[in-house]
Amino acid sequence: MSIVVVGTVAFDSIEAPWGSTERAIGGSATYFSLAASHFTPVKLIAVVGDDFCAEHRAILEDRGVDLEGLVTERGGKTFFWKGRYGEDPNDRENVVTDLNCFEHFSPLLAAPHRSTRWLFLANMDPDIQADILGQVEGEPFVGCDTQTFWIERKLESLRRVIGRVDALFVNDREARELSGRRNLMLAAREILGMGPKVLVLKKGEHGAFLFTKDFRFFAPAYPLSEVLDPTGAGDSFAGGFMGYLASAPAVDEAHLRRAMIYGTITGSFACETFSVERLRGLTDEHISKRFGELVDLVKIELD
Amino acid sequence: MSIVVVGTVAFDSIEAPWGSTERAIGGSATYFSLAASHFTPVKLIAVVGDDFCAEHRAILEDRGVDLEGLVTERGGKTFFWKGRYGEDPNDRENVVTDLNCFEHFSPLLAAPHRSTRWLFLANMDPDIQADILGQVEGEPFVGCDTQTFWIERKLESLRRVIGRVDALFVNDREARELSGRRNLMLAAREILGMGPKVLVLKKGEHGAFLFTKDFRFFAPAYPLSEVLDPTGAGDSFAGGFMGYLASAPAVDEAHLRRAMIYGTITGSFACETFSVERLRGLTDEHISKRFGELVDLVKIELD
Repeated sequence: MSIVVVGTVAFDSIEAPWGSTERAIGGSATYFSLAASHFTPVKLIAVVGDDFCAEHRAILEDRGVDLEGLVTERGGKTFFWKGRYGEDPNDRENVVTDLNCFEHFSPLLAAPHRSTRWLFLANMDPDIQADILGQVEGEPFVGCDTQTFWIERKLESLRRVIGRVDALFVNDREARELSGRRNLMLAAREILGMGPKVLVLKKGEHGAFLFTKDFRFFAPAYPLSEVLDPTGAGDSFAGGFMGYLASAPAVDEAHLRRAMIYGTITGSFACETFSVERLRGLTDEHISKRFGELVDLVKIELD
Repeated sequence: MSIVVVGTVAFDSIEAPWGSTERAIGGSATYFSLAASHFTPVKLIAVVGDDFCAEHRAILEDRGVDLEGLVTERGGKTFFWKGRYGEDPNDRENVVTDLNCFEHFSPLLAAPHRSTRWLFLANMDPDIQADILGQVEGEPFVGCDTQTFWIERKLESLRRVIGRVDALFVNDREARELSGRRNLMLAAREILGMGPKVLVLKKGEHGAFLFTKDFRFFAPAYPLSEVLDPTGAGDSFAGGFMGYLASAPAVDEAHLRRAMIYGTITGSFACETFSVERLRGLTDEHISKRFGELVDLVKIELD
């Protein structure tokens, strides 16, 4: 079952006390696609400028990502982001955000995209997310990400989108802002009341919760000895989660729990190198090994 | 198998935006004893002043805690601590610390205490901890807690103690200070190298790790909808952990993993009321229920 992702394909420059990278491939749709491609075919919808070359496309094509929906804007420049990390990889400063050709991104979905059964709306203007939702046919399983930026500026639009999606992905800070609750259990209850069937609440190095009206699940973070660059970890989490779920026989409790572990794993690999290096070199064996380790990490044998 | 705890019995005053308490019973040995008493008989060693009355002793006696080792210093006053919490229960300010009769605490262990098979050294001057270790006979299983205060002031003494104990309990901040490593996996490796067989690394609301040279385990925090007063949660964690282990048929991987869950549970109850109210009212059924919930929270069914 293939999955359609709509988001950004970008160039990222990153500075950290332990290293840096210049104009490496990044963007929400990129990370999501590379992670999800280990589980299911992925079709990517995004816009780039003509500074996005064949070698960049090859990074996605090598993982079998369908780029029919990747529009190249003639004379345009690709979304560019520059960030800086402090000694603590949790401290990130946005140095430059040049939307470039993404500024007026408002995709018109082609027929194979409109009829998708699996859709992921990466972080973007909720009005664009709503527009895309209006174009899809049938009742696909829709995952959606957002950010503080939109919670603060377009809460009403965002709440309308949240009311229509199946799975919402937020981090702890976003959950608190969206709900107005500091306690995450109360925040989760509040957000589930806004409509999504599934809430994935990510706490970075502290793991992630999944909430539905019927059960809750906690996935510990994969314990890393070194975090080089957490950029894209959230999108990689969503890619592993949604990709696995699209490949599963059913969206039920057992598979949602496992999807959380796969999301944790693809998110963990994203942190281990700058840009997408680690995700590019990933094999199914690497993923299986971490799955086993995570299961073991929390295993409790009962009498 | 009974367990001996050496630590403080104190009066605590706590102020928080959502409530306060005045001179309620607290102290490391109190929290530890109440938690451990659900699993195994506890013998408490501490000192109080004669402001510590029969009604206070009854709180411990009601849970069967042996107070033979609780010395009352005539004319002395009981350890008093006053703390203040901010909106975030993780932000705690020490307002008053009156050591009072605890200032010169240096217990001489009686025969039944010296021959204990299970010993917990709560946070105190590592030189006193070493002195107690020197008094015990045989090779008891020894758990030990400490604090930033001693890491900064008496590191050499502390390292000598750590080299002689079986299980060390620290939180994430203490682990970083003790090891000089920011990354907790590297910190854990460093600390295990200092001698303890078992390292329990607590992250408060983010759960707790257990490390040995053979395996690592992660226990998620019990998800609470309200945290009223985290005072004593760490000592209650140690009490549940050590109490369960003392009652278990063996100190092996399976029982260490379960001890982490029991520690998590007794720690969680400590947070739900000011002082020890919730721990006093606790039943074995309350503990069993949370055990089941925590197992379920991380359960992954494999194909």
